[in-house]
Amino acid sequence: MRFFSDNAAPACPQVMEALVAANRLDTAYDGDQWSERLDGAFSDLFGKSVRALWASTGTAANCLGLAALCPPHGSILCHEMAHIEVDEAGAPGFFTHGAKLTLLPGQGAKLTPETVNDACERVRDDVHQVQPSALSITNATEYGLSYRADEVATLGEVAKRRGLGFHLDGARFANAVAFTGADPADLTWRAGVDVMSFGFVKNGGMNAEALVFFDPAKAEVVPRLRKRAGHLQSKGRYLAAQILAMLENDLWLTNARAANAAAAALAEAAGSERLVYPVEANELFVRMTPEEAASLRAKGYDFYDWGPGEVRFVTSWDQNMEAVGQLAAAIRAL
Amino acid sequence: MRFFSDNAAPACPQVMEALVAANRLDTAYDGDQWSERLDGAFSDLFGKSVRALWASTGTAANCLGLAALCPPHGSILCHEMAHIEVDEAGAPGFFTHGAKLTLLPGQGAKLTPETVNDACERVRDDVHQVQPSALSITNATEYGLSYRADEVATLGEVAKRRGLGFHLDGARFANAVAFTGADPADLTWRAGVDVMSFGFVKNGGMNAEALVFFDPAKAEVVPRLRKRAGHLQSKGRYLAAQILAMLENDLWLTNARAANAAAAALAEAAGSERLVYPVEANELFVRMTPEEAASLRAKGYDFYDWGPGEVRFVTSWDQNMEAVGQLAAAIRAL
Amino acid sequence: MRFFSDNAAPACPQVMEALVAANRLDTAYDGDQWSERLDGAFSDLFGKSVRALWASTGTAANCLGLAALCPPHGSILCHEMAHIEVDEAGAPGFFTHGAKLTLLPGQGAKLTPETVNDACERVRDDVHQVQPSALSITNATEYGLSYRADEVATLGEVAKRRGLGFHLDGARFANAVAFTGADPADLTWRAGVDVMSFGFVKNGGMNAEALVFFDPAKAEVVPRLRKRAGHLQSKGRYLAAQILAMLENDLWLTNARAANAAAAALAEAAGSERLVYPVEANELFVRMTPEEAASLRAKGYDFYDWGPGEVRFVTSWDQNMEAVGQLAAAIRAL
Amino acid sequence: MRFFSDNAAPACPQVMEALVAANRLDTAYDGDQWSERLDGAFSDLFGKSVRALWASTGTAANCLGLAALCPPHGSILCHEMAHIEVDEAGAPGFFTHGAKLTLLPGQGAKLTPETVNDACERVRDDVHQVQPSALSITNATEYGLSYRADEVATLGEVAKRRGLGFHLDGARFANAVAFTGADPADLTWRAGVDVMSFGFVKNGGMNAEALVFFDPAKAEVVPRLRKRAGHLQSKGRYLAAQILAMLENDLWLTNARAANAAAAALAEAAGSERLVYPVEANELFVRMTPEEAASLRAKGYDFYDWGPGEVRFVTSWDQNMEAVGQLAAAIRAL
Repeated sequence: MRFFSDNAAPACPQVMEALVAANRLDTAYDGDQWSERLDGAFSDLFGKSVRALWASTGTAANCLGLAALCPPHGSILCHEMAHIEVDEAGAPGFFTHGAKLTLLPGQGAKLTPETVNDACERVRDDVHQVQPSALSITNATEYGLSYRADEVATLGEVAKRRGLGFHLDGARFANAVAFTGADPADLTWRAGVDVMSFGFVKNGGMNAEALVFFDPAKAEVVPRLRKRAGHLQSKGRYLAAQILAMLENDLWLTNARAANAAAAALAEAAGSERLVYPVEANELFVRMTPEEAASLRAKGYDFYDWGPGEVRFVTSWDQNMEAVGQLAAAIRAL
Repeated sequence: MRFFSDNAAPACPQVMEALVAANRLDTAYDGDQWSERLDGAFSDLFGKSVRALWASTGTAANCLGLAALCPPHGSILCHEMAHIEVDEAGAPGFFTHGAKLTLLPGQGAKLTPETVNDACERVRDDVHQVQPSALSITNATEYGLSYRADEVATLGEVAKRRGLGFHLDGARFANAVAFTGADPADLTWRAGVDVMSFGFVKNGGMNAEALVFFDPAKAEVVPRLRKRAGHLQSKGRYLAAQILAMLENDLWLTNARAANAAAAALAEAAGSERLVYPVEANELFVRMTPEEAASLRAKGYDFYDWGPGEVRFVTSWDQNMEAVGQLAAAIRAL
Repeated sequence: MRFFSDNAAPACPQVMEALVAANRLDTAYDGDQWSERLDGAFSDLFGKSVRALWASTGTAANCLGLAALCPPHGSILCHEMAHIEVDEAGAPGFFTHGAKLTLLPGQGAKLTPETVNDACERVRDDVHQVQPSALSITNATEYGLSYRADEVATLGEVAKRRGLGFHLDGARFANAVAFTGADPADLTWRAGVDVMSFGFVKNGGMNAEALVFFDPAKAEVVPRLRKRAGHLQSKGRYLAAQILAMLENDLWLTNARAANAAAAALAEAAGSERLVYPVEANELFVRMTPEEAASLRAKGYDFYDWGPGEVRFVTSWDQNMEAVGQLAAAIRAL
Repeated sequence: MRFFSDNAAPACPQVMEALVAANRLDTAYDGDQWSERLDGAFSDLFGKSVRALWASTGTAANCLGLAALCPPHGSILCHEMAHIEVDEAGAPGFFTHGAKLTLLPGQGAKLTPETVNDACERVRDDVHQVQPSALSITNATEYGLSYRADEVATLGEVAKRRGLGFHLDGARFANAVAFTGADPADLTWRAGVDVMSFGFVKNGGMNAEALVFFDPAKAEVVPRLRKRAGHLQSKGRYLAAQILAMLENDLWLTNARAANAAAAALAEAAGSERLVYPVEANELFVRMTPEEAASLRAKGYDFYDWGPGEVRFVTSWDQNMEAVGQLAAAIRAL
């Protein structure tokens, strides 16, 4: 059984049905009836007029958002383990034409207002130094922690005071909402977030993510950037339809709750001694000897090593809870 | 009835079935079983060992290919009406970090060895002038003409002699193969083509195009460029599956033949007097007064104006031949 | 005797004296007393509060200016023979991160309001096409013609109406002012020019050009771009001192008048039959058989061939008028 | 008296004389007699056939060199206090089209083979992570330490083993040679360095630095990059002449020795208690209370604060040793 990655999971049935339903003649690019409903659907979700665009990957969504916030000569403050730094092949540098990522430390891949503020303090305001232009956080983080609304808000205050655009990598935003129970608005625009990537692919989508601008004016240039990056699909309705299907009846939340529940079951089995971080989404980082890991793999469980003496499990929307229970038992039995 | 664009058509049934069949757990990115079959499938088609990658748009496929052939300080020779110049929002400049497109004239958006050669002659070989690095053609062209194999080969000879990489925009390559009856190998690598985008979306696909390198060595850096451009989808199996479905049993050719047949029926109805160019693929450019165009639209036919006194019809793989016959009759009756 | 290029001439005595005078301890970069006087000196010259920065080359000055006017996804309209297109090695693409140059025809490398307007008309206002963002002209042009103030003003009107930034390549602006007798303000900001490169190197400077923004707000980001492009010299006083020396007592005009006078003497000798273009600055394009050219070269005159049956002479600020007279006689005697 | 920066010092007399001597008609760009002597002069200095180009700033020289070593999708390993990271306004990102700087720690801004090796180890060799392509060190470092030849060589071994290009920022290379007494060859190509910027401006030049490629093949594209970046001056002889004047009779070493001697005198006065780092070039970092610093400034000495309780003094080639003696006495008297 695979606990490698939520990217390995299939698309959920409602998404497949939506693709079938959208499979008819319509206007090309994003002029179709599905794409045109995106702004409204996200505006409803966030309780605010927003501008929403589809993109086929989280990397594209993140970097189009960052390019809208940060000029080529600016820098983006982010955690040193942020996905945009560690796993996007330098895409931020490509989309921004060379802007820098300024890397900050922080427990569990979380930033604090202090580290952000200090990083700004260290930069001389002259032409020799790259000036901070944007702040980027990931919620849930790369280590499976969820920022609470007030944590985001204090970061938003620093961003505002420092004149930084505020970007949220929401590849697992659904998991953070599911875990915290917070209003999506409180985790985003009410906390000062300007733009977010809203992840669907890890959560049951096929190949559609959303890019949401809470200030539509900041999105103005983005349709051009998207096209210029080769991300304006000619049959965009198939992306929009996926997203709309997942927003309907809060399927995005339902799926995320399922993945979180699986992770929680494993976390309880692992116990706080073994857990490197509290489990607040659908990822677990677990201390385990190579022998212990081998014994689990011998039972058919697949997962990544994550540094010496640590392994990572990721759960998905479609996780079979019986199998999860068996893995939980196997972990308990180590 | 829509004759706007082949992008408006739905995905064909075999593609939809392939998506359903691929909808299960597998390795993320392009490590899945479908993606791993792409090289082999295209090698079979072209009778040569090639390297093939999926991409979600023709713009991405074209520009990743061009970036592999042309350095930032080089130029790409192409027709002044080439899609990469006219309809890709400057994407070639983005992916190549600022390389130039050098625009050449030519009847029906076709280039000739003479214009290509002359363009090279005009460039002084010094550091002040941007040096030609690549040649790009589109087959079938933006005006619905198809290069024959020998025409491509004479262009390939100039490219080779001038040290130019040779790129083929194959958004409608299937239509060109269907029209000319040529062996795909003769229209590409045997004629000197180094890399092509192989279009599926306009021809019944949903959102997958292929990028084919006839010299695998030239593709080496491309997986990194694709990731860096946000085009490495995390569930790549859904792209690969579409492509494989369309290669199977030559569905790509069957679909293209259907679209070409619809265009040929309309072309016959229009007659050579009205046709701006011979119809050698699935596009027609037809001379028509505004009143004539209006009368067709009044009957429910949708199509674009294309310059003063000209309109464009594009036919698709799924065109209802009865409706095509009615439009043909309406054109005849003008 | 060299009539190759005004770049071959030495620096004039006043520039050398200024370098010696500036050769003492001062603040680094552009914090020195000379650099700080630039804004004022150019504001006096143009009768308007401007922002002026030094740069070491015309290419850098032009491209920093263009980068301030045109986003990466925009295009710059210019003549097909413009220096930025033909002789800057793709630098506009580098500094703008991939913006396009849209090439326009025009007699003697001059643009007309009609060609500019038509070029804008041809662009669909959608995300697929690169939108015109700036207009660039060269005065005096690459073929030695000078725009009159009213010609610049009609171009400026089109630029304004179309929302284009207006850039002037002033590598030989001094020659245009000297020829037309126009007020520099009338050839620039009163005619709608937003930014210009003001050439000194071809006119007796050593290695300092100026970049002048008529709207200081548009210059705001430019000091950062200059540094980022490696053009912020650490001992900037040596650039500023050259420029100030050439502005003092209108030395820039005196030098340009000398070069123009030499060209006028040659033009008179050549006669209108031989002249490809009227001579309105310091360049002549002369019809001449290869044998005639060879006979002049045999007498010790150096100059470039410029297409079949044409040669180019360029005169400099330091041209010996006696030698010019001898060349004039030799041309007459052909 | 200024101890701010070696950029504040004037150009030395031999440089001024060389400019005067070069002030005559010659071929433009780098076709002149001075520029053509550069390769030979540096080949003599390094005892190896090299390719040398002038550039007007250290930032340009560094970044052209880095662009020759690192592709847009690669990363450059450097110290977290490296000039290319801290004081070049993101120029490496501009010249490389978005390559990353991977920042490493190290005492006194020096890297060790271990930190370099560890940084490479941490990178997974897949398309998701930016791969290290180059290593860059500064000698003398930003904190005034000099790498010894064997230290450079052990870094060169790691670079070679890891397939990294090896770049040396030699803004104060002369000071490092003067301090270590090493053969320039042993500090560079014999230790594996591929390309270096060789600084002259801080050491008595006006506005000319050299970019030296120890493997001329790696320089092939650089003249195009230089032109494209606006750094090909049209009267390049004035840059080449400065460099040649400083190479003649080892003036570059004489000047550096003078600056180092002044720094050594101040270091002795400060004593090891106050010195943050050993003084191995022309920079001192001295622990000092704000009151002490104020008392020195009250006596007319200018210098920068450098973090809490620290100040920086930089000495120049032209430092008046009597004044240095007075400052030394004043420091002693604190």
